[in-house]
Amino acid sequence: MQLEALIFDAYGTLFDVHSVIARCEALWPGKGGAVSQLWRSKQLEYTWLRSLMGRYENFEVVTADTLRYACKTLNLKCNDDHVGQLMDEYRRLATFAEVKDVMPTLAGRKRAILSNGSPAMLEAVVRNGGLGSELDAVISVDSLGIYKPDPRVYQLAVDTLGIEAHRIGFVSSNCWDACGAQSFGFHAFWINRAGAHVDRLSVEPERILTTLADLPAFLS
Amino acid sequence: MQLEALIFDAYGTLFDVHSVIARCEALWPGKGGAVSQLWRSKQLEYTWLRSLMGRYENFEVVTADTLRYACKTLNLKCNDDHVGQLMDEYRRLATFAEVKDVMPTLAGRKRAILSNGSPAMLEAVVRNGGLGSELDAVISVDSLGIYKPDPRVYQLAVDTLGIEAHRIGFVSSNCWDACGAQSFGFHAFWINRAGAHVDRLSVEPERILTTLADLPAFLS
Repeated sequence: MQLEALIFDAYGTLFDVHSVIARCEALWPGKGGAVSQLWRSKQLEYTWLRSLMGRYENFEVVTADTLRYACKTLNLKCNDDHVGQLMDEYRRLATFAEVKDVMPTLAGRKRAILSNGSPAMLEAVVRNGGLGSELDAVISVDSLGIYKPDPRVYQLAVDTLGIEAHRIGFVSSNCWDACGAQSFGFHAFWINRAGAHVDRLSVEPERILTTLADLPAFLS
Repeated sequence: MQLEALIFDAYGTLFDVHSVIARCEALWPGKGGAVSQLWRSKQLEYTWLRSLMGRYENFEVVTADTLRYACKTLNLKCNDDHVGQLMDEYRRLATFAEVKDVMPTLAGRKRAILSNGSPAMLEAVVRNGGLGSELDAVISVDSLGIYKPDPRVYQLAVDTLGIEAHRIGFVSSNCWDACGAQSFGFHAFWINRAGAHVDRLSVEPERILTTLADLPAFLS
């Protein structure tokens, strides 16, 4: 497949959102996994709800709000210091194991991130992950004030890169994001690390891969 | 509070979506609760995602799709007959215990349902629940092709009833729906039967009640 650009989702795709579990576990022994799971699911839910309500707040606000919500629901104390510590963790999320080896093999075309993250969060996590030199652009939804999978988000990447949608590959581990990108007109690759079932949203990702390491084989 | 109309959410508010558990349990012993929980959470998720993607399908399609998804994820066999049986259950969901006593006490103002449900699903569940005579209108999002909490949905109720938003009380057990309605301009009552925490979506429901039976006290 001849693609002029590859666009990567950030959270869950390049960066492991559940790498916060260790810090959660240190703060709330025995509950780290539960906090991380509920936090992530509410974080996504709030991006969708705020987009539909027309009540955008940036991803830092949403991420801190949903951490507080998750802790309340799990009956765990969560003060400003706890939130600060975990927002710090979010700026240094681990990259998935294969990312650093695969990214250089994808050079020769434009490579960018398109993410719900705020510009400040993305700048930090890319820098801490050592991925800056592997990316031509880091694009945040923040200038639009709406979250994925609204098609305006994917259009923002087209406009930023100046490359037509059908010449762009979009890579995400979030099935709904891959479906949204495919629906928009990208060639979507769903990195299905968890072995989940494909979502039933009228449009399916063009390819389903197990890890990012499977991607180069489809691009030659 | 002087309100000219009361608008009720249907699923989860008047009708108990988890009254499908018994049938789920008969089909998949030991897994009824798990199916019902995952089914409901994916059902809501798909309404938000399809709305944002601009890929509306009606609530019958979404409800059947998410049942199939839930069963696949839980490794349970789900054929067309199973789906048919559970879609039948959806047309005869139990009303919550207090509904039949409370509804007549709220007469004297317009009373309506505003729901994600398709017209056919709503007609059936209202009839089977014996609530037809207690309602002046049953309003479905279907004519709009978008789901809650998009403000156009709440506007549809304003237009249908011909009553200004600030003279309307909106009643929902789904906190995000109550927040969406309050954000739109209704007076929202969140019926928090489960003792959940209020969502952090910039706008909170005006009142938080434990059951529908607490509603009349606020309306005199």
